[in-house]
Amino acid sequence: MAQQSKINSAPEATRGPATSFSGTVWVTTLVGPNAETDCIVSSVTFDPKARTFWHTHPNGQLLVVTKGIGFYQEKGKPARLIREGDSVTIPPMVEHWHGAGPNGTFTHTAINPNVSKGGAVNWLQAVTDEEYRIAH
Amino acid sequence: MAQQSKINSAPEATRGPATSFSGTVWVTTLVGPNAETDCIVSSVTFDPKARTFWHTHPNGQLLVVTKGIGFYQEKGKPARLIREGDSVTIPPMVEHWHGAGPNGTFTHTAINPNVSKGGAVNWLQAVTDEEYRIAH
Repeated sequence: MAQQSKINSAPEATRGPATSFSGTVWVTTLVGPNAETDCIVSSVTFDPKARTFWHTHPNGQLLVVTKGIGFYQEKGKPARLIREGDSVTIPPMVEHWHGAGPNGTFTHTAINPNVSKGGAVNWLQAVTDEEYRIAH
Repeated sequence: MAQQSKINSAPEATRGPATSFSGTVWVTTLVGPNAETDCIVSSVTFDPKARTFWHTHPNGQLLVVTKGIGFYQEKGKPARLIREGDSVTIPPMVEHWHGAGPNGTFTHTAINPNVSKGGAVNWLQAVTDEEYRIAH
């Protein structure tokens, strides 16, 4: 039987768990696990100062900023400001975090490819307040 | 040498070519070809009545509507209305088109996985005015 296109109507956001995020973060899974493309797509909104824990992706990740100004930091390098329309290409197994600046909300779309081959994300330790302070 | 994260600052839109699109369409390549994820990500804005030609994707495609109301039609099936926050999961080699409704602009993000394996898209014939009229 031929595969069919599937439409997913605007899904609800859920709170990002405190084991992976610091502060208030809302995750909307726009496209969940699917055999057709093996990509997962989420929209993630961070309140001011909210951020991911340090983490890696077995198959890399793409971020596209859709609202606000935030930070992206690769382990051992300075944090970078990222703005609406900017994208980040993250290689497999590169440790990093991303999140909001101190004064405004920040939203990005996150795209994880080939998730059936090794999973989407490996969560590590929290970004400390000191690490966050140094970022900006 | 370890791979590094790459930031691409808000790129410019370019006009979608008349060999693949009917009407005025603007394509912003947010993430171009990259070995890190093998995914290409674009934002595409359609003026009222503008649309893609019929086409297929060798490795499928994901669409996420970011603004307005548009149409998605798989060959041989009725067109479907798609709205902000909706996503479409398109299997490999399924013939389809997408575009704006008659009265407003429409923007979606398009994600093409595994583009090094067979390419991103095979363009076919234009969606005729009659096919477009029947869609709505």
